[in-house]
Amino acid sequence: MPDHTHYLDTFENPQHDTDYTIRLHIPEFTCLCPLTGQPDFAEFLIEYVPDKLCMELKALKLYMSSFRNEGLFHEAITNRILSDFVALLKPRFMRITADFNVRGGIYTQVTAEHRQDGWQPATQVTLPGEL
Amino acid sequence: MPDHTHYLDTFENPQHDTDYTIRLHIPEFTCLCPLTGQPDFAEFLIEYVPDKLCMELKALKLYMSSFRNEGLFHEAITNRILSDFVALLKPRFMRITADFNVRGGIYTQVTAEHRQDGWQPATQVTLPGEL
Amino acid sequence: MPDHTHYLDTFENPQHDTDYTIRLHIPEFTCLCPLTGQPDFAEFLIEYVPDKLCMELKALKLYMSSFRNEGLFHEAITNRILSDFVALLKPRFMRITADFNVRGGIYTQVTAEHRQDGWQPATQVTLPGEL
Amino acid sequence: MPDHTHYLDTFENPQHDTDYTIRLHIPEFTCLCPLTGQPDFAEFLIEYVPDKLCMELKALKLYMSSFRNEGLFHEAITNRILSDFVALLKPRFMRITADFNVRGGIYTQVTAEHRQDGWQPATQVTLPGEL
Amino acid sequence: MPDHTHYLDTFENPQHDTDYTIRLHIPEFTCLCPLTGQPDFAEFLIEYVPDKLCMELKALKLYMSSFRNEGLFHEAITNRILSDFVALLKPRFMRITADFNVRGGIYTQVTAEHRQDGWQPATQVTLPGEL
Amino acid sequence: MPDHTHYLDTFENPQHDTDYTIRLHIPEFTCLCPLTGQPDFAEFLIEYVPDKLCMELKALKLYMSSFRNEGLFHEAITNRILSDFVALLKPRFMRITADFNVRGGIYTQVTAEHRQDGWQPATQVTLPGEL
Amino acid sequence: MPDHTHYLDTFENPQHDTDYTIRLHIPEFTCLCPLTGQPDFAEFLIEYVPDKLCMELKALKLYMSSFRNEGLFHEAITNRILSDFVALLKPRFMRITADFNVRGGIYTQVTAEHRQDGWQPATQVTLPGEL
Amino acid sequence: MPDHTHYLDTFENPQHDTDYTIRLHIPEFTCLCPLTGQPDFAEFLIEYVPDKLCMELKALKLYMSSFRNEGLFHEAITNRILSDFVALLKPRFMRITADFNVRGGIYTQVTAEHRQDGWQPATQVTLPGEL
Amino acid sequence: MPDHTHYLDTFENPQHDTDYTIRLHIPEFTCLCPLTGQPDFAEFLIEYVPDKLCMELKALKLYMSSFRNEGLFHEAITNRILSDFVALLKPRFMRITADFNVRGGIYTQVTAEHRQDGWQPATQVTLPGEL
Amino acid sequence: MPDHTHYLDTFENPQHDTDYTIRLHIPEFTCLCPLTGQPDFAEFLIEYVPDKLCMELKALKLYMSSFRNEGLFHEAITNRILSDFVALLKPRFMRITADFNVRGGIYTQVTAEHRQDGWQPATQVTLPGEL
Repeated sequence: MPDHTHYLDTFENPQHDTDYTIRLHIPEFTCLCPLTGQPDFAEFLIEYVPDKLCMELKALKLYMSSFRNEGLFHEAITNRILSDFVALLKPRFMRITADFNVRGGIYTQVTAEHRQDGWQPATQVTLPGEL
Repeated sequence: MPDHTHYLDTFENPQHDTDYTIRLHIPEFTCLCPLTGQPDFAEFLIEYVPDKLCMELKALKLYMSSFRNEGLFHEAITNRILSDFVALLKPRFMRITADFNVRGGIYTQVTAEHRQDGWQPATQVTLPGEL
Repeated sequence: MPDHTHYLDTFENPQHDTDYTIRLHIPEFTCLCPLTGQPDFAEFLIEYVPDKLCMELKALKLYMSSFRNEGLFHEAITNRILSDFVALLKPRFMRITADFNVRGGIYTQVTAEHRQDGWQPATQVTLPGEL
Repeated sequence: MPDHTHYLDTFENPQHDTDYTIRLHIPEFTCLCPLTGQPDFAEFLIEYVPDKLCMELKALKLYMSSFRNEGLFHEAITNRILSDFVALLKPRFMRITADFNVRGGIYTQVTAEHRQDGWQPATQVTLPGEL
Repeated sequence: MPDHTHYLDTFENPQHDTDYTIRLHIPEFTCLCPLTGQPDFAEFLIEYVPDKLCMELKALKLYMSSFRNEGLFHEAITNRILSDFVALLKPRFMRITADFNVRGGIYTQVTAEHRQDGWQPATQVTLPGEL
Repeated sequence: MPDHTHYLDTFENPQHDTDYTIRLHIPEFTCLCPLTGQPDFAEFLIEYVPDKLCMELKALKLYMSSFRNEGLFHEAITNRILSDFVALLKPRFMRITADFNVRGGIYTQVTAEHRQDGWQPATQVTLPGEL
Repeated sequence: MPDHTHYLDTFENPQHDTDYTIRLHIPEFTCLCPLTGQPDFAEFLIEYVPDKLCMELKALKLYMSSFRNEGLFHEAITNRILSDFVALLKPRFMRITADFNVRGGIYTQVTAEHRQDGWQPATQVTLPGEL
Repeated sequence: MPDHTHYLDTFENPQHDTDYTIRLHIPEFTCLCPLTGQPDFAEFLIEYVPDKLCMELKALKLYMSSFRNEGLFHEAITNRILSDFVALLKPRFMRITADFNVRGGIYTQVTAEHRQDGWQPATQVTLPGEL
Repeated sequence: MPDHTHYLDTFENPQHDTDYTIRLHIPEFTCLCPLTGQPDFAEFLIEYVPDKLCMELKALKLYMSSFRNEGLFHEAITNRILSDFVALLKPRFMRITADFNVRGGIYTQVTAEHRQDGWQPATQVTLPGEL
Repeated sequence: MPDHTHYLDTFENPQHDTDYTIRLHIPEFTCLCPLTGQPDFAEFLIEYVPDKLCMELKALKLYMSSFRNEGLFHEAITNRILSDFVALLKPRFMRITADFNVRGGIYTQVTAEHRQDGWQPATQVTLPGEL
């Protein structure tokens, strides 16, 4: 699989002294099935706690589009994208979820995550009530 | 119940050094009621953390279809499918959920799971906010 | 309140050596208001981890229908049904949730549960991502 | 704020030897804005684990309606209603959630809770799968 | 970025001796993209456990509207608003979630939170059943 | 089938000089299957243009409840209820829709209507746009 | 029923030479049941083709709120409000729809309309496709 | 294609002197793809105005299930079922809609209808307002 | 109100010999209330049958954004935008629908349309069935 | 624009003596923006009344995929696809609806249709009631 990381770019985290969460929802992703050459479609969700760097969105869009004509297995591409992002951003925590469209009556979702050595999430505060 | 495992196939996990999750949603499953011979319909959700092997999807589809004309009790078939998959994939963790269509005004759901000896899930990171 | 347990029936749990969950959703339940004699309507959700016995569904339907012309308070009937099921099935865990239709502008839900002495649920595995 | 507790009534908890949950959803509540005199509208959710007493519903309806022509701040009324109910029922646990309709482009929700001294909830059993 | 805090106002917490939760949902927020000058749109959710002070809503509306013609990055503005509110209210806990509309096929959500030194949430009571 | 019309009552139409529409949605109806004696459940929608008389709602509720323990075919009961209402109210137009719950995997809906001799609906004004 | 029309106000239609539609959706309306004195709640939809005058919204809000403590039958109040608006605005066409909350298990909707003598709607253009 | 009509049965229309509508929604239908032998799944909607005969539901269920192991093209089976029903019931009007599950990324729906010679639907009364 | 039409642009209709429909849904629109100066928010739907010219989308976006800091009445701005578009495109048919956010508990929608002299829509073909 | 029609294929209409409707819903379509080269995504709905020929689905999928790397304007591609299908199938009636994903805050839908010379749809039978 060719290297796509040159599409990616970053900017400095404006609030690097505390943990906070950024979620990027990308409903438009398409690649090819490596066996049949037919198009596959997926939605990606990227969730991360930034450390020194944040993901630049215009560059992210180009990176995601660059898989358009490559043949990719669901499990491999999700782990590969996570690995590209982790190498670039060195985030405190990152999780990638890819929801692939139905093929042969089966919907596939792959979720992979990474956490920095030694990083612990703050105890989660669950406030009662729901909006 | 005849053996259906010869329909199943695997491929090597491309990322076996970390835990990640694969979810397979199969909205189309049908078998027969073992008492009346009438058709039953269900949706299956397969969630697993792969170890050395992943489930091959085309083979999975054939396996799921192969119950089409067999008489099966809800509780038995769900546990049986889990047991077939565990024997094949030896996953770190696997959960099967089967949602059966209403019969006699009652909807039945059966959920069964398996975890490898000694496997522990990573502490779950719950990021605040919802997309 | 007359005894309705003779309607119930069981079958042997086909997988009694592990914990798994059975959920029975019953959208059709009606009884009478014990004060006014007017009909009440509710949905029931029965969730249990079976031990040696499972609930037979046709019998369950007759049992649920047998309250049709009895006057019943919301809190009492929910606890009573739980108690009938526990006496019959001796489940490892059971939870009954009853959602009653609006009366006088108020919707009432009652939830009660039982667990076998000494039974502990396995640590819950929460896999990241949602289908 | 005048006392409204004389509207409330109770009945004996038919299952006081175990913990169980009662939820009362009241979609119709209206009072006045204490600053402008204009009507406010809200939905209330009352969740409690009863001890010796349960809330009588017809009386509850009259109590909720009795605020119709009073000027009330969102935060104050929610805490006040909780305090009235706790004084009356002495529940093991109670939570009140009030969802107020949009005013000036902002939706406000207030959630307050009370627990009896020394009361601990049972360990929550989360069964895998969702109906 | 100019100071907007003079728009904000507070009132005394009517129930400062216990922890309770206030949620403010603001579906209407607009600012400008600092790179293109084009309008951005977002929804904000403010959740907090007040200490001595509560947020005054009319003032909050003016504060939120005052960003209308400023160029703001998603990550920076969310953290900035949290920081303005924390300085003003000194809440026991506060969480800000901002959901930005799609730009270039990507939806961005930023969530940041603050807790008072030494403050601990009460153990969360999760009552079984759902309304 | 016994006569249930003595449950019904009317009141004078307060606006009998123009055509207008009254819709009554009744989500709670239950009767018995005439073949098996098992309960059936349905929702009714009554739509009518009143002439001299309107349907009294408390009486309507008693009438609908009075079928609770009778064995009724879907097609027959819907037409029978229409016929009872038409005899009583002599409406300019009336339509009854009954949505029966699933039985044997099939949902049944029956819709019947009546119009007064010579009555014509006004030309329908369809305003563009939808709220 | 006392006269409430002094609350209403109008402004000049800025586009009186063509037909166009104004829809006003008012989710908050409450009055009293004339028999029991208990609160009723409803949503109103006002749709009209203005002639020389349009409805002023702040005044409309006061008018709708002014029924808060009056006892009103569903059919009568809907026709009465239509008649008040028609007398004031003399619209080319107007339709009022009132959706009352469930009482005794029955939801009531009343819809009434008025058209100016000689007014005809333009032929409706139904464009194929739906957004 | 073998003849399946011997599964079907009828009963006498209890209200044959007026036009009324019966809708039968059948969410569970499965057959085989005539090219690949793989299972297909569909939902059927049968709408008809009966003349002398109505469809018996238990027989209908058997008829629909009898296609389970036959290879059928979407367009052919929908027209074939319509034709079987029309031959049996001789309805005043009948419409069959079949919604087939996605195959190769395409969802197919086929709708066919039949009307008796000389039968005309009554002018449709569209009452303003929607429940 | 200043002239905003210089923001608009057109391109040649690539299929001007037949009637077809273009729908443009614009969920992001904001202006100011002419009385209070407070922000208003709305969604616009533009539906048209082009003649010689189509609306250029980038220019349309700039035009819609240009009202951001102007004080505008709901009825006037909707008719004004229609009039600007008609002057520019001279479409065979055009309809503008504006859904304004709630203010004072009231949601306002304004719909206006224009048709070319002598233009008639083709008879609408309503195909039975719905996807 | 290159010719893509060689991907298309047909089969003989199995029921050519009556009018019936085929709907093909294709949620996965992607092409390029002719100005920026960036990917566009759309959903297509194809509705037609076949004459002698029906659309072969596997070929249709290849045809739709073949636009993947071409630069296409929304209005042109929708009309072009309609024109390709009409030339191939010579249907009695056909309608194409294309829903394009948001770009610059604007969602675009294009709908175009064709009818055979002299073909008239049967009078639409609208049965009262909705499932």
